[in-house]
Amino acid sequence: MDFDNTSDTELSELGEFGLIKHLTQYVELNQSSTIKGVGDDAAVINNGDLETVITTDMLIEGVHFDLTYVPLKHLGYKSVIVNLSDIYAMNAEPRQIVVSIAISNRFKLGALEELYQGMLLACKKHNVDLVGGDTTSSISGLVINITAIGAAKKENIVYRNGAKEGNLLCVSGDLGGAYMGLQILEREKAVFKENPNLQPDLEGKDYILERQLKPEARQDIINLFKKINVQPTSMIDVSDGLSSETLHICSQSKVGIDLYEEKIPIDPLTFNTALEFNLDPTLCALSGGEDYELLFTIDINDYEKVKNIREFTVIGHITNESKGYNMIAKAGTVHELKAQGWNALNK
Amino acid sequence: MDFDNTSDTELSELGEFGLIKHLTQYVELNQSSTIKGVGDDAAVINNGDLETVITTDMLIEGVHFDLTYVPLKHLGYKSVIVNLSDIYAMNAEPRQIVVSIAISNRFKLGALEELYQGMLLACKKHNVDLVGGDTTSSISGLVINITAIGAAKKENIVYRNGAKEGNLLCVSGDLGGAYMGLQILEREKAVFKENPNLQPDLEGKDYILERQLKPEARQDIINLFKKINVQPTSMIDVSDGLSSETLHICSQSKVGIDLYEEKIPIDPLTFNTALEFNLDPTLCALSGGEDYELLFTIDINDYEKVKNIREFTVIGHITNESKGYNMIAKAGTVHELKAQGWNALNK
Repeated sequence: MDFDNTSDTELSELGEFGLIKHLTQYVELNQSSTIKGVGDDAAVINNGDLETVITTDMLIEGVHFDLTYVPLKHLGYKSVIVNLSDIYAMNAEPRQIVVSIAISNRFKLGALEELYQGMLLACKKHNVDLVGGDTTSSISGLVINITAIGAAKKENIVYRNGAKEGNLLCVSGDLGGAYMGLQILEREKAVFKENPNLQPDLEGKDYILERQLKPEARQDIINLFKKINVQPTSMIDVSDGLSSETLHICSQSKVGIDLYEEKIPIDPLTFNTALEFNLDPTLCALSGGEDYELLFTIDINDYEKVKNIREFTVIGHITNESKGYNMIAKAGTVHELKAQGWNALNK
Repeated sequence: MDFDNTSDTELSELGEFGLIKHLTQYVELNQSSTIKGVGDDAAVINNGDLETVITTDMLIEGVHFDLTYVPLKHLGYKSVIVNLSDIYAMNAEPRQIVVSIAISNRFKLGALEELYQGMLLACKKHNVDLVGGDTTSSISGLVINITAIGAAKKENIVYRNGAKEGNLLCVSGDLGGAYMGLQILEREKAVFKENPNLQPDLEGKDYILERQLKPEARQDIINLFKKINVQPTSMIDVSDGLSSETLHICSQSKVGIDLYEEKIPIDPLTFNTALEFNLDPTLCALSGGEDYELLFTIDINDYEKVKNIREFTVIGHITNESKGYNMIAKAGTVHELKAQGWNALNK
């Protein structure tokens, strides 16, 4: 179980996914009840008839949120939603959460109450019970860790690795909005720092601000799948951006992809705000993240069932692995799809 | 779901348990699969035949551990153990964990590898699978959050609220050692700060240092219960000190307690080291914490089955709630048992 002699490697050299891959290389699964370990939106545990899915996310002040413009109630709501989104991405029903919070003494009780109210609101909306947790001191910022537990019948669980050649790649809702909402908030924070008397200019930006501050997890899509009798062949939630998530599905399914830029659903407000910031709207959708939409593949025979559903957009088709990862630009040129993440946008 | 007008209350006024009680007052349990929510060592979820138990713990650098004397491998090991201990305290078998880690760039990969090796060692020893997690950046210290999932048959799960008048209160192993180990480490750190050329004086303190740095979760006790066919009526793990845990059992079971000071199991090294530090050994056992022993009650009819088991000590008996919480001191005097926690010792 000894790691190779890599002790002095800087973490930044590996990146998040490289780090996870490295650290988990010696993880052994010995429990017969473990169906799926590291590597999907959630782990899967066998319990007989129903399987349990479980996922966890940590949110750190100064890294994942900025309390200068994120209301605590919204933060509480979002911290639950990002976890429920992972459960839905397994085509499962979230049922319980456990919550750990580390807080410094600079917070009064009222602040924690707001945070909790937001969490309980998300629980209520998604019919999830808060069943436990840990509350502790922090010497610096606020830290929130939530673990969500869900359930699904074995035959209904959708993994990342089930996409097949000829499948269609689809996405719910629209993309890039949460990232553009963040840009607005960061801009207004900078303006406020320069001149605290100026009121923030958020007018007309409601939709993308809500995408950033109060995202929703797509329970409705999971219900829709049941209603129209479609079982996706693979699925993931869009937390890191369309390109990164598409590549997760492709690499785990050992397939290639042709993704069409012109098909990527982008809301007009997102589009126009991107131009306002001199950003390419497509790049915002590909690399922006935090949209919490569902990206999934379906059998071509299910196309008739989804083609008239307003919430779904077919954006590409799955090819043979040897064809690689391609984005066909609006101009018809072909580009290699790369996972750039937020870093690409912050340069 | 609005909280009372308590917004300006300082968190320190409430304390950890008061805070949890306050924040969770509006938690509703609506999922039929939720058997037990906040308030025990772990939550319990129904899955049909087997029930799932789940617990979570957050460890913060500078609050729960000090990397100047805690080796990362030990920290990884301990961070898993403290969670497994909560699962065992439900008389359940831990099966999976999910791990969230926040790290700053001051850590090189080698440091994380050590941490992971410790976690995987604990997993291997307890036959637990690491099935998922989250790895993220921290702007200051190291944060570790682990959620452990276990399983048990419905009829085997032991809650905190099952103690009955006439039951015997028992504890596994011995108490106060982990706290005295911490005192040694803190003393040597202070000496080192004064004079970095002095070698730490840890000689002969192996047992209590191990109690602090590499505690064990009592899987063996759970197995022993099965072997001798004893089902405790209530159980909790000793993480905050004997008095605090005893009071949890009593208040949740709505019973009183007579606890005998002379019966409290204290290892000779713990006892002598306490005297060396001018501390009362009994107070170290009552308030020291982090021993991760199991405190439980049994029916008096099971006394014959446990009386010759070296690992168990009967330390008190459960009385009517009206009798209150009493500790009978060695001198025969009766004192009210209070949950003082570590603060009592640090004054």
